[in-house]
Amino acid sequence: MSKIKLILQYDGSDYIGWQRQAPEHGISLQQAVESALAKVVGSFVTIHGAGRTDSGVHALAQVAHFTCPVNITPQRLKLALNHILPKDIRIMAAEEVDEAFHARLSALSKVYRYLLATDELNIFNYRWYLPLDHLPLIEPMVEAAAYLIGEHDFRHFTLANSKAKSFVREVRSITVYQPNKQDLPCPLQNPLAIEVEGNGFLYKMVRLIVERMLVVGQKKLPPTGMRDFLQGALSVNLPPAPPQGLMLMEVKYGK
Amino acid sequence: MSKIKLILQYDGSDYIGWQRQAPEHGISLQQAVESALAKVVGSFVTIHGAGRTDSGVHALAQVAHFTCPVNITPQRLKLALNHILPKDIRIMAAEEVDEAFHARLSALSKVYRYLLATDELNIFNYRWYLPLDHLPLIEPMVEAAAYLIGEHDFRHFTLANSKAKSFVREVRSITVYQPNKQDLPCPLQNPLAIEVEGNGFLYKMVRLIVERMLVVGQKKLPPTGMRDFLQGALSVNLPPAPPQGLMLMEVKYGK
Repeated sequence: MSKIKLILQYDGSDYIGWQRQAPEHGISLQQAVESALAKVVGSFVTIHGAGRTDSGVHALAQVAHFTCPVNITPQRLKLALNHILPKDIRIMAAEEVDEAFHARLSALSKVYRYLLATDELNIFNYRWYLPLDHLPLIEPMVEAAAYLIGEHDFRHFTLANSKAKSFVREVRSITVYQPNKQDLPCPLQNPLAIEVEGNGFLYKMVRLIVERMLVVGQKKLPPTGMRDFLQGALSVNLPPAPPQGLMLMEVKYGK
Repeated sequence: MSKIKLILQYDGSDYIGWQRQAPEHGISLQQAVESALAKVVGSFVTIHGAGRTDSGVHALAQVAHFTCPVNITPQRLKLALNHILPKDIRIMAAEEVDEAFHARLSALSKVYRYLLATDELNIFNYRWYLPLDHLPLIEPMVEAAAYLIGEHDFRHFTLANSKAKSFVREVRSITVYQPNKQDLPCPLQNPLAIEVEGNGFLYKMVRLIVERMLVVGQKKLPPTGMRDFLQGALSVNLPPAPPQGLMLMEVKYGK
């Protein structure tokens, strides 16, 4: 019985999100990986993910752990899983870890990137970004984002019916930048990225941050509007930014 | 009643190919476009494609025509179709054409590109190329391809049970080149492209040409093997190269 850490990438387009749900809701990523794993190790084993990405959200490096009931090298496990898994889910790495490791509880922070562009939608790019008529202005977005940095009560940055035990999260950084074209999932002529790092995120929190930054970047709201959102002084019914632009880029752990 | 020419792009991964087939075989691209069109114009209209791409084969610019039973501008038709069509099929252009135009019969030539690379398979690239351990040698491939240029009987470059009326086709050019990275459907570090232009192609002909060029480029067969294939003097049971590497790039018409 050894503990295994997996690093996975996936195209979330055709899944109902990371978390296993009742079968009538569709197939989750957790479930797809668990059924491949069951075929490899011969019995059902629960997989614990670092972050519960929503339906349609992607991952470049999701992390998950499980307790392996059989004797198999991580390298063979990786190959066997990739052989069975659909091609929109790939195991990038598998390694044995200390018994104390927990994909979610041991994580220090998670990094999400939201991708937008003015490119016309085509068959190569439609899975990976939010198409906009004009790029938002960077400066007001950065100014607005500054209000969110640090430890705050983010109850106004999740769904109203959230059952979270605590709404306090620490946002470490929010960066707006033009990504290198070779780092993109698809060719885009005019992309912009918003990267958010935090110690954890409430349900739909990243996409609500992004949507509100966009509204500021489109000059429909001043940057101080973000502070008002945070304090609950402003309540505009903005839906979260669409899922296909979002990707879990990295889960960071200690040494 | 006006005749409309469409230019379409599609990701063929999830379709059984261009041509409509009995429903139990799955959904074809022709059928997907025809059902979107029926919703726009209010009645079923047959669409005629320039080339019958196989299951899993893509198109950057397939051409099709149909006779439009209602009065609608090509631009509105394009917008309405793109609104209804799944995102892996896009109408790039729609225009009214002369009554004499026929997508297949008026075509002078078709250009197909086959993409291969030594990149590891990932969630961004797996739909678009053939992964190889090593790139094939360009020079022997070009030498082998030269035997195919011109008008030939290509009966040994299709399936043995082919029911084609004539096996004579003219291959105008075969080009092996390193594609510009910005022209690729996905990021690839080490791609190679084989482009074939001809006045028409037999069933699986392009993929059989590519597979045999690869065998020559891997030094498993001398370039003269291609001449032997053409003459029927060599019969090695090579399956056609897998469909996901192939894309219909252009259909050329006269002035």
